[in-house]
Amino acid sequence: MRIEVIGVVGMPIIEEGDDLASLVAEAAEAQGTPLMDGDILVLSHVIVSRAEGRTVDLRYIKPSQIAEGFAEFTGKDPRLVEVVLSDSRAVRRMAPGILITETRQGFVCANAGVDKSNVPGEDVVALLPEDPDDSARRFRERARELTGKEIAVIVCDTHGRGHRDGEVNVAVGASGLNVIRDRRGEHDLFGYQLRVKRTAVADELAASAELVIGQADEGVPAAIIRGYEYEPSEESSAKDLVRPREKDLFI
Amino acid sequence: MRIEVIGVVGMPIIEEGDDLASLVAEAAEAQGTPLMDGDILVLSHVIVSRAEGRTVDLRYIKPSQIAEGFAEFTGKDPRLVEVVLSDSRAVRRMAPGILITETRQGFVCANAGVDKSNVPGEDVVALLPEDPDDSARRFRERARELTGKEIAVIVCDTHGRGHRDGEVNVAVGASGLNVIRDRRGEHDLFGYQLRVKRTAVADELAASAELVIGQADEGVPAAIIRGYEYEPSEESSAKDLVRPREKDLFI
Repeated sequence: MRIEVIGVVGMPIIEEGDDLASLVAEAAEAQGTPLMDGDILVLSHVIVSRAEGRTVDLRYIKPSQIAEGFAEFTGKDPRLVEVVLSDSRAVRRMAPGILITETRQGFVCANAGVDKSNVPGEDVVALLPEDPDDSARRFRERARELTGKEIAVIVCDTHGRGHRDGEVNVAVGASGLNVIRDRRGEHDLFGYQLRVKRTAVADELAASAELVIGQADEGVPAAIIRGYEYEPSEESSAKDLVRPREKDLFI
Repeated sequence: MRIEVIGVVGMPIIEEGDDLASLVAEAAEAQGTPLMDGDILVLSHVIVSRAEGRTVDLRYIKPSQIAEGFAEFTGKDPRLVEVVLSDSRAVRRMAPGILITETRQGFVCANAGVDKSNVPGEDVVALLPEDPDDSARRFRERARELTGKEIAVIVCDTHGRGHRDGEVNVAVGASGLNVIRDRRGEHDLFGYQLRVKRTAVADELAASAELVIGQADEGVPAAIIRGYEYEPSEESSAKDLVRPREKDLFI
């Protein structure tokens, strides 16, 4: 039983309007690992946002009074705070250097996922895609059109988390696979029926992808995961990974 | 850039006192993937606990009055609650069906990591290893002694988390690698210096391993991750992944 995580290298700098599926498929082909049926393609959200034009030049942002106040408290750029707030539906925590919000998609993360790294231009930041599940779905359809291959697609971002230090890559968008593998009812090695096992496989796939994506200086914006038998689904999406606050016993 | 995640199959049922490193090394050899320098070996905590005799037969447990009370409130087996409490240093949350505690190692998880699955015997449960970092260290030394290979070792468990639904595999013990990759100071694709990137690579490696380990019925208790360049460390351990409560802004 063997799974491969393959970095997709040699891609051009992504710009607004680029046909991302075509560029990824070409790069995969050029490096000798063309897309195959059953592959899971994990995309860094930054290239998706860049292709969708979801970047903001902070020089054109005029912060509101609220953003100015939050910026003073957190020590952050007021223009960045303005952008973060405009992409958030709640502010969860603030502290010097820290602004944790709930994004419009429901993800709880620092700065609403607004990212400075791997974006060209000194004052330019990348927001999360408008609807990362839809981005994944459109990428998947376009990849099918171009290559004839049936794949699953995950859009990923790196988030901090409660209780544990450091950040991990998680799925913020998904298409084509069940993001949670519900194993209740399966039996273990000794015939015991599992009762409480619901594995967030899309997050585990995103984490695996960062083993190759997380190489900032080498520019690996996407990974192919090959050999993992995911459960196909047309209904499941990364929204299924959001735990509603009222049901969240881990916070 | 390619990383492989290889399931180790064909291992016997692990019993107390077994030489785990020897059994894993033999199984890896037998399946044609002998341990190599630079491999990361990820072990399901249950086999480590079984080898270390960290299992409890609930038939011999007499629950305290506190355990009886908590059991009534949560609907759990009072003997299980007794075992969970004896391995915890704090109770974080309780609700019907749910008991989230802080383990003696500092991990916040359901039932203090006490596990029913993949343990033989109807009333037998597996606790976390006494000191999972030490278990990883001893496994690593023994593997070096047996094979001459320098590897890193992670002991993993599946935990729920805040904000996100489903469980993911995380590192509860580690030896030989820096569990957090501190990327502050590195530069991105456009020369921007990363400021806030500290990646919990040991957790991402554990998550990757579950893509092959998480197959209850096939009995894959360990995985080899090959091709990932980890940062060697003799000091780092899974304890570095515990975020102290007073610094935890995500809860």
